[in-house]
Parts: sequence; C-alpha cells; structure tokens
Amino acid sequence: MANAIRALAMDAVQKAKSGHPGMPMGMADIAVALWTKHLRHNPVDPKWIGRDRFILSNGHGSMLQYALLHLTGYDLTIEDLKAFRQWHSKTPGHPEVDVTPGVETTTGPLGQGIGNAVGMALAEKMLAAEFNRPGFDVINNYTYCFLGDGCLMEGISHEVCSLAGTWKLNKLIVIYDDNGISIDGKVINWFSDNTRERFESYGWNVIGPVDGHDIDAMDVAIAQAKQSEDKPTLIIARTVIGKGSPNRQGTSKVHGEALGEEELKLTREALGWTWDPFVIPQEIYDAMDARAAGQKLEGDYNEMFARYSQAYPELSQELSRRLKGDLPANFDAVMQEAIAKAAQAQETVATRKASQKALNAFAPHLPGLLGGSADLTGSNLTNWTGVEAMRPDTYLGRHINYGVREFGMSAIQNGIALYGGFIPFSATFLTFSDYSRNAIRMAALMKQRSIFVFTHDSIGLGEDGPTHQSVEHIPSLRLIPNLNVWRPCDTVEALVAWQSAIDSRHAPSIIIGSRQNIEFIARDVDEVKADAAQALHAGAYVMKESGKGAEQIDCVLIATGSEVPLAVKAREALEEKGIGTRVVSMPCTELFDKLSSEEQHAILTDAPKVAIEASVTGLWYKYVKNGEVVGIDTFGESAPAAVLWEKFGFTVDRVVEAAMKAINR
Amino acid sequence: MANAIRALAMDAVQKAKSGHPGMPMGMADIAVALWTKHLRHNPVDPKWIGRDRFILSNGHGSMLQYALLHLTGYDLTIEDLKAFRQWHSKTPGHPEVDVTPGVETTTGPLGQGIGNAVGMALAEKMLAAEFNRPGFDVINNYTYCFLGDGCLMEGISHEVCSLAGTWKLNKLIVIYDDNGISIDGKVINWFSDNTRERFESYGWNVIGPVDGHDIDAMDVAIAQAKQSEDKPTLIIARTVIGKGSPNRQGTSKVHGEALGEEELKLTREALGWTWDPFVIPQEIYDAMDARAAGQKLEGDYNEMFARYSQAYPELSQELSRRLKGDLPANFDAVMQEAIAKAAQAQETVATRKASQKALNAFAPHLPGLLGGSADLTGSNLTNWTGVEAMRPDTYLGRHINYGVREFGMSAIQNGIALYGGFIPFSATFLTFSDYSRNAIRMAALMKQRSIFVFTHDSIGLGEDGPTHQSVEHIPSLRLIPNLNVWRPCDTVEALVAWQSAIDSRHAPSIIIGSRQNIEFIARDVDEVKADAAQALHAGAYVMKESGKGAEQIDCVLIATGSEVPLAVKAREALEEKGIGTRVVSMPCTELFDKLSSEEQHAILTDAPKVAIEASVTGLWYKYVKNGEVVGIDTFGESAPAAVLWEKFGFTVDRVVEAAMKAINR
Repeated sequence: MANAIRALAMDAVQKAKSGHPGMPMGMADIAVALWTKHLRHNPVDPKWIGRDRFILSNGHGSMLQYALLHLTGYDLTIEDLKAFRQWHSKTPGHPEVDVTPGVETTTGPLGQGIGNAVGMALAEKMLAAEFNRPGFDVINNYTYCFLGDGCLMEGISHEVCSLAGTWKLNKLIVIYDDNGISIDGKVINWFSDNTRERFESYGWNVIGPVDGHDIDAMDVAIAQAKQSEDKPTLIIARTVIGKGSPNRQGTSKVHGEALGEEELKLTREALGWTWDPFVIPQEIYDAMDARAAGQKLEGDYNEMFARYSQAYPELSQELSRRLKGDLPANFDAVMQEAIAKAAQAQETVATRKASQKALNAFAPHLPGLLGGSADLTGSNLTNWTGVEAMRPDTYLGRHINYGVREFGMSAIQNGIALYGGFIPFSATFLTFSDYSRNAIRMAALMKQRSIFVFTHDSIGLGEDGPTHQSVEHIPSLRLIPNLNVWRPCDTVEALVAWQSAIDSRHAPSIIIGSRQNIEFIARDVDEVKADAAQALHAGAYVMKESGKGAEQIDCVLIATGSEVPLAVKAREALEEKGIGTRVVSMPCTELFDKLSSEEQHAILTDAPKVAIEASVTGLWYKYVKNGEVVGIDTFGESAPAAVLWEKFGFTVDRVVEAAMKAINR
Repeated sequence: MANAIRALAMDAVQKAKSGHPGMPMGMADIAVALWTKHLRHNPVDPKWIGRDRFILSNGHGSMLQYALLHLTGYDLTIEDLKAFRQWHSKTPGHPEVDVTPGVETTTGPLGQGIGNAVGMALAEKMLAAEFNRPGFDVINNYTYCFLGDGCLMEGISHEVCSLAGTWKLNKLIVIYDDNGISIDGKVINWFSDNTRERFESYGWNVIGPVDGHDIDAMDVAIAQAKQSEDKPTLIIARTVIGKGSPNRQGTSKVHGEALGEEELKLTREALGWTWDPFVIPQEIYDAMDARAAGQKLEGDYNEMFARYSQAYPELSQELSRRLKGDLPANFDAVMQEAIAKAAQAQETVATRKASQKALNAFAPHLPGLLGGSADLTGSNLTNWTGVEAMRPDTYLGRHINYGVREFGMSAIQNGIALYGGFIPFSATFLTFSDYSRNAIRMAALMKQRSIFVFTHDSIGLGEDGPTHQSVEHIPSLRLIPNLNVWRPCDTVEALVAWQSAIDSRHAPSIIIGSRQNIEFIARDVDEVKADAAQALHAGAYVMKESGKGAEQIDCVLIATGSEVPLAVKAREALEEKGIGTRVVSMPCTELFDKLSSEEQHAILTDAPKVAIEASVTGLWYKYVKNGEVVGIDTFGESAPAAVLWEKFGFTVDRVVEAAMKAINR
C-alpha cells in the first residue's frame, strides 16, 4: 500500500514534470498506518461531521493526499491523478479546500496548516462542550496533522502549538516528518532545535522518535497518542525523504522535482513495484477502500444523532443550523433594528467603539459568533457585555485571548471557520495586520467567513508613532482578491459592516476601526430612504448631496472612516463658494466595484473628484482618475492626534484646494 | 537610581497623558544593573563602533531607555524628556533609531527587536572573524536585549532564537522581563510555556529565574552570562510590572496608561521619592554619568585601533570603509561595465537568473555583500560562484541559510544592516513576502540599506498554484513608503536594480524575479544613449518609441518585468494598425514618482495609456488615469504557465483591445 502511494506520487509528478515526490515517498508508510488503522472518515460523504480531520501542513506533498483519497475511495479517479497540476483539475499543485473532496484546508504556505489544525481541534472541543450530552457525543473527532521541518521552523508553529498546549487540545495529533532534509540540504546547519524538548515546553505529549517506515510502530504510536487525556501529541517520525529512490532518497534533490525516467525505473526496481504508471493492483484498492467502513461509521452516527434529536430537539436543530452556517431566523430583523436605532441615536464615538456596539447588538442573538484578540481586548473592543473568555476547563466562553500572536490567531480562526459551527472573528491593531497578512490571504483564497477586526487605523492613534500608525495598510488589504475591507465612519456604517461580514458566506471581511472619536453626521440616505442600510451595502453612497441637487454636481468628494466629517466640512466651504458638492462615503470599495457601471456612475458621476483618506494615495486614482487625492504618502510621526491631522494636512483648506485643482484641470 | 528611572517614566507618561509606565518601573532595577555595571558605551559618541548594543525589544517601554540615556549623559536633556511623545521631539512614543542618540533600532512591533539583536550579534561575530587579528579585537562587543512576554509569544522569537542557538551567538544576552502580565491580564491563561525549557531546546544558556528587583543578583547573572562560551544567554528575571505603584503594580492596568495624579502621589510616597516631577538629584546624575568612563573606553579603543592600522593598514582601511557604508572605489566602474556587457549579450533568461548574474558580476568586488535565503537558495538564486555558506565554525561565509523563517530572516537582516559593515540581502518567494512584511516596513521606516529579493513573481510560476502565485504583492509592496520595488524585465534592468539597491543608502529595495525565462528585447535607449543605465535609473523609460516618432504618440503601453515583451509585441500589432505606440518599461514606480512632473510627462506624455502587469490592477490607474489596465484581479490557478498566460488573458489581442478602448474613450 505504501508503495502504491509512492508510485502514484512519483508517476504523477513525472507526468506533470512538476511537483514534490520526496515527501509522499517518505511519509507513505506513516500515511498507511494512519489511514488504514485509525482515521475515521467516509469517502462517500467527505463532509460528514463525525469525520476525523486530516491536515497536510506540508502541502507541497499534495500527491500523498491525492493518492490516499483515490485509494480509499473518494471521488477522485485515476484520471484526476493523471491531471495533477493541470488547468481546473481536481488535483492542483497544493491541496485546495472545495476543489478536491476530502481536502479540509488549503495548504502550502508553511506553518499555516498546523495553525488551521489547532483551530479545528479547538472548534471540536468547543462545539462538543456546547452540544454533546451524556451518551451523545455528536461532536467527536480527532484532528491529525502532518508537518515537516519547514512548518516547525516557521514562527507561526510556535504561536499555535503554544496555544494548543495551553488549551489542552488532547485530540490533536501531529506527526512530524523528521527527515533531516530541507530544500537547502541537511537541516542541521539551520535547524538544530531539540524538538521534543521544545514541544514539552508547550505542555505537549511527545512520542518518539519512531521509525516512520515501520507501520506497526506508527500504529502503536498513534494508538498511544489517542490516549492522551489533556495534552496534544507530537509524534516524531524518523523518515528518509524520497524513500525508494536509489540515487535521490535522503537528499534535497528529491524534494521538489520529478525523478526523471531513468531514476523512476530504478526506483520501481528498488521497490519491487512492477506495475505501469498509474496502474494499481485491485488487491491494493480492495485493501484500502474505506467506503463500506465509512458508510457504517456514518450510519451509526446518524442513528445516534436521530436519538439525540429526539432527546434534545432544540439542541439538535441549533447544531444543524450552526453547522450549515445559516443565521438564526430572526437575525435579519435584529440587524435591521439595530441599524435603525443607531441612525436615530446619532452617537459620536470611535469606530472601534461603534464596532463593539455592533457586537453588543448582534452577539446575543448569534450564538455561533466567536470573538478574540491578540492581547488587545480592551483596545480592540472585541468583547461584549457578559461575554466570557474561553478557557480549557469548560471550553464554553465565546471570546478567545490569543495572546500576542497575530499570525497564529488568524490561522487558527481560519481553522475554526473551516470546521464550521462558528462565525469567528479576531482583532489586533491595523498595523499588525502585516503579521497575519498571509492568513488573511488564505481566508480569501479559501472563501471563508473569517472576520478580522483591525483598530487604531491611522495617524489618528497619535502618540504611539509611526511603528503603530498604518498608512499603507488599508489600500494594501484592498488589493487582496475576494476580501471585503470595511472602514466605517460611524455607528451606522459599523453595523452595516458587521451585517455584511456576517452575511458574507464565501468571502472574509475586515472591519477597520479608529482609536479616536469620529463626529456622527446624519446622512441624506437616513432621511430619504426607508432602508438606509441597503444604500450602505453598496459599499458607497451619497452621504450629502450637492447643494444644487443631483442635477448639478460640480465636484464629488469621496471619503472613508474618520475622513468623512472632514469631507462634509470641506463640502460646506465649497458650497459657500458656489460649488455644488456631493460627498460620497465609500466604506467598502470592493462592494462598490461589484456594482454595474451604471450604478457606479450614478454615485460617482462625471464630475471632478477628490478622494480623502489618511492612507497612501495611489490606489484612489482608480476612482478619481484625473482628480486629486488627499492622503499621506510618508510614514506618520509620534505626537497627539490633533497635531498630526494639522501637520499632515487633513484640513478643510487642503481639501478645498484639491477640489479647485480637480475642477480647474 | 532605579527610582529615578521610575520617576522619570511615570512623570513623562503623566505629562504626555500617553505611554507605558509599567515596563520601565518593572525593569528599572535590571536596567541599573546592566547600565551601571556592565554596558560598555560612550554617551559622548553614541556611534562608537566598540560599544555594546542595547536593544529594547519591548519598545513600548521607551521611557526606560530615554531615562537611561538622559541619566548616563547622552545628548538628551530633561526638556527632551518633558517633550515625550510630542511632535518632532527626540523622545517619540517608541524608540526610533536616528531620532534619539543611543537608540540602536526602532522597536515597538513585538518580536522584531530581538530579531534585530540576533542580526547585530551575528554581524559582530562575522566582522570580528574577518577583521580581528591576534591582540587586536577591533570588533568586540556584547549585544544586550530586553524583552517581555509579548516578544516571547510572537512567532518571530522562535525563528530568531532558534537561529541564535544554531549560530552559537554567545555574546548575545537577553533579559526576559517575566512579570506574568500582558495587556489582557495574567498571561498564564494564554502563555503557559516553560520558557527555560524552550530556550534550552534552542541550545541557549538559561539563567534564572532571578529576582529582577535585586540589583546584585542581576549583576551576578549578567556577569555569568558574559562567560558563556558558545551559547546565547537568556536571563529570566522575575519582576513586578509597575513596581512602586501601590494600587496598580502587578496588574495590566499599569501597562499602557498614565498613573494619574493621585496614584503618582501615592507612588512617590511608596518609593520614598520626594523630588518634584523631572527633578533628579545631582548625586544620582553623578553616580550614573557614563561619559568619563565612556571616553576612556573609546580612547583605549582608538589607541588600539591606531596600532592595528599600523600593523594591518589594508584591513584597517577596508574595515573603516565598510563601517562607513561606502562602496569600493572602483565599484561604479564594475557596475557600469557589467551593465554595458549585458546590454550587448542580450541574453534571454529568467529574471531570478538575471539577478544571480548581477550577483556574480558585483559580489566579488563588494566584500560586504552578504546574501541569504529562507531555504530556497537554488530557487531564489541568491548564491554566486564560489560563495561559501556562513557557519559558526568560522563565521566567514557570505551566504546565510536562514531556514524556512521569512520574518526572522528579514528582521535579522535589518539588524545586520543597523550594525554596519555589511550590505545584507535575503530572499524567498514573492508570495511569502507576506510573512516578512512588517520587517520590510521597518527597514523602510528605519531607512536601512536592506535588500529583499523575491522570486517566482506571478502566475508565471505555473503549477504550484494560487498559494504560491502572487497577484497582489507587487502593488502592495509599492504602497510602503521609502521603499524601492524593482521588477526588472531582463539582465540589464536586473543589473540596474541591483546597482540602485546597493547605492540606496537610506532606503531598502526589493528586487523581484520571475521563475520563467523572459525574452530579451533590445531597447531604444541601448542604441541611442551611451549611458543607458542612467535612463533606467529613472525608474521608467522609453523602451520602444512610437513608429511615428516621439512627435506622434497615439498610445503608450506601460509594462514591467515579464509583461514587457508582451507590450512590445502588442505595440507591433498596433503599429500595423497605424497607431503610433510607445512602450515604456517601468521597473521601479517609486523612482519614477520622484521625477519632476516635466520629466514624468516626457516619458508618459498625454497619449492614452494602457498598463500591463500580471498583478491586481488598481494601483496602475495612478499612471493611466482614464486609460486601461491589463492585469489579474483574482487569485491564480494551478496549471502550466503557458496555459495560465492564455487563460488569464495576457495576450496581444487583449492588449490591443485595451489600447483601442483607451484611444476611443
């Protein structure tokens, strides 16, 4: 069976002339031990909630997973394997969730898979705590994760494994492919950690080193790991990378390129594998086919769940809703009401506070909402009235103290979203979105409802200075595809941002908040439209119309967040000069981009435009074209915010000047 | 003395009504032990090369450092301390290098300070290995670093401390402010690592826990640390955050806000500190003044260096040049010649290969050039003919295997640049620039000559798929202020990019390379200008002129990197239609932005424009305004590159269509 995996991996890589044969060939025996003796799954229903999760954190070894999925009976044919790494095949270069049945998360960027796995293992604990009842373990699975030296070198592995220990995630079982080789060669020269000692320092159960080519030994190790009562387990498995290739095994050469026809032939001989490429003997298929066993497992589970539904009908319904990702039936009304109230209340607050008000309005009605912060709870304002912290004694709280671990937090959050049952969000200062940036990207690529709150959004944070003042972050986040970046200007926009984020089932959202208060300004749409929120959901809308009416617009000022009141004040100055000025608030450029060109034109018109945002200016030319941008193209400075706004030129005079320049061009 | 530090910290924070008193009050005793008993420095000459380096990785405790600098005699007056966190003061919110004398690096973003410290400690070892001679330790200093729980939670601390152990940086001494408190409260709920065991797993010498309020005990611990022969040292110092504040010490409340007048009064009483705010008794000034001792140290050093210069005149000159950051006298000629040769050779290669060719041309003539890669040496092509790897047995190699640690690598590199004597560069895949993004930002903020090579720059990398294909990274890096992002299209531009990066003393540079070959196209400037490089250094230049001459330009195509040949082919198609088309290659938009508007206009003209780049499109409207952009606004896919170029529409037809649209607007 292990040689079947090796053969498929090396043949697929050879056919594609691209890929990574070393890892699958090295981890094949471990995979056989796990997949044939332990993994509870149902190839017929890859999304069965009772399944164990399998995460390939060293995602470059994708052919290992594809071979396993194929051999155990998933809807992944030998033709799919032959199309490895080809256009729109089910077998892309790295595993991608929702592309290949049985793939739980998209991996490749090292260290994030183990982060996702920690998130899944936590989600399992938390859902189990909430929904299981005596005799009804409706949530009950292990999370298995493969990783290599690369993942362990990455800093994120420190962040998430430290948390996994603190959280006592005993059903997380990680198998470390300890082959001593990375791309540059023998790792000893750049990776000399005592990994056992390191993981023990995190409070893990460490097993091994075990011979990763001894299936029985691996079987025993995994069985032992499953007995761990309050610690996650790391199994250190000693392997030979590219095992079976006479001239390449144990070298970095086998990591990331096809073996070549000659070496393939020699490898077949060495392994005693006499079958042609992509031919697997039926007896191996028969031995590995997990469909019947999987159907039985799921059948038993369904029977148990039916009894659970009878005993606990409300719990059962709620769990089903949560797992489907649906919102509570009355939730739309809750959101609408909150928005209407905020429009009436007209409160002047910081938008981080506005975000917290949204949480207070929504969270009690949305049990799956799960917050957190990277040790800035009181600054990010991610907690809400009455929320409790998640602690491993109960796993019941709904707010996670992630500690100062932005990247790990975000990858864990993605794992929670992937597991299901929760709408997770987390927070840090906007500047430190840099630390977690690739996890945000992964959320977007994986189309997850993963929500990121970033506060302290500009020079407006004042004295902390340029290290903490984002200037480039808002535009740079807008560049990530399939991601909605909201920068609300007040309580109403903050509620709409949260509503949008919660409704967005296939794209992550960012909600950006200011540290400082922002003056509430009643918008035209609040007055003229019954459903103001609808206009706001377009991502941009007319906040204040030209004094001469929509028919004569001499100038359009576009602003976001804390710069909206400045735009409104500048409009007044322009109107006094007889210039009909419309103010457009554009809290989410991505949603505006999705409007038809007619809808966009109705908002932006042909009039000369000025964009105002305390960010690097370049991206705004997309909207103002030949117009002007009032922004900040340098780093900030340390000083009180009021001084900074003046010094950096966020003044009515400058906006008026820019408008005159745009008009007279 | 410790109470003087406490008083200055709490009074300055109170005056600013902003800042972090907890850490300075907690680490004051440790600081006294280090600064009065061990630190070798000269307040009169903060840049003295023989000084020990002091890094405040927990940079929010900036008042600790400012108080120390003031009290020991640096050019930082009591008035400067009163101006804490005010506009253009010498005492910004977080320590900033080149703003405050004695500050070695800008800190605040947690975990990066220790990364810089590791870089400085490595630079010390490497320069010492190269330049010291028996009896002449011209490079010889300790690197001391303070850090807290936050830095230790951050993943980057894992990356850099693992390397520090592997590299046997025994002169790195880190003092951990183990106060059990972070912003969210008692760390035990989110940070339960056994830190001793963790650092021992990295091969560190660990001392403590020591009572961080016992100056003698800290003195002994530091003395012991200095004896370590082949291991870096972590001293775990148990402290009380905000020590001295009766109602706030030991709580998160004291971390990041002013004590308030009432608590200040109580704290003064508790400490027995009877002096008014910002008043320090002369006896404390006298006791802490390090100027005379510092002058003596530097005097002795200078005397030794003078003898060294006599004994080893060439070494001495070379070291002086290197420390000043100057280039070798003949280096301009070397660069010019290499560029001229490349223009003649007209080689078609991948631009990552073109970058390596630049290294081969430059590195032998630039001894301070120090390369490295995050375990992708053979892919990034950061090594050059004959270069040896840096290993701790000699510290003499000039290429560093950083392992899979992008963020740590970049922060270490910044530390090397800050130490001086080297022009460091490092590399990974462009997509994984995300992992190191905040360190790139810090290099820009600190105005360091830190060079980042990022290869595999677009869907052009092919089969590895969307996790590895950058689409948003190039524009998002361009948004960081004070950073030059080069995306060369061939050997000539790659050489110019390297030349620019090496010449850029006060801004970091990024050099982006393709995985795939890019057709070499002879440019008009090669033919018409003796010094083609000069045009290229403008960041944009006319690669191919309109067929109707510069007087009749109907359309301008702007392209970068691998899209330049496509632009040239599209130009041919447009010319056939009778449309005079200029092709502008724009390898560095930031340098173009620095041209006068006349110079910019001479290149871009008023003609309708199309930009072509395999990136997210938004930022290009800055240059094309009402024109068109041919780019990619979604994630990539896994398939052979040729398929992807076609599927994503990087074709002559699409460019021509875009050009016609722009022209007919």
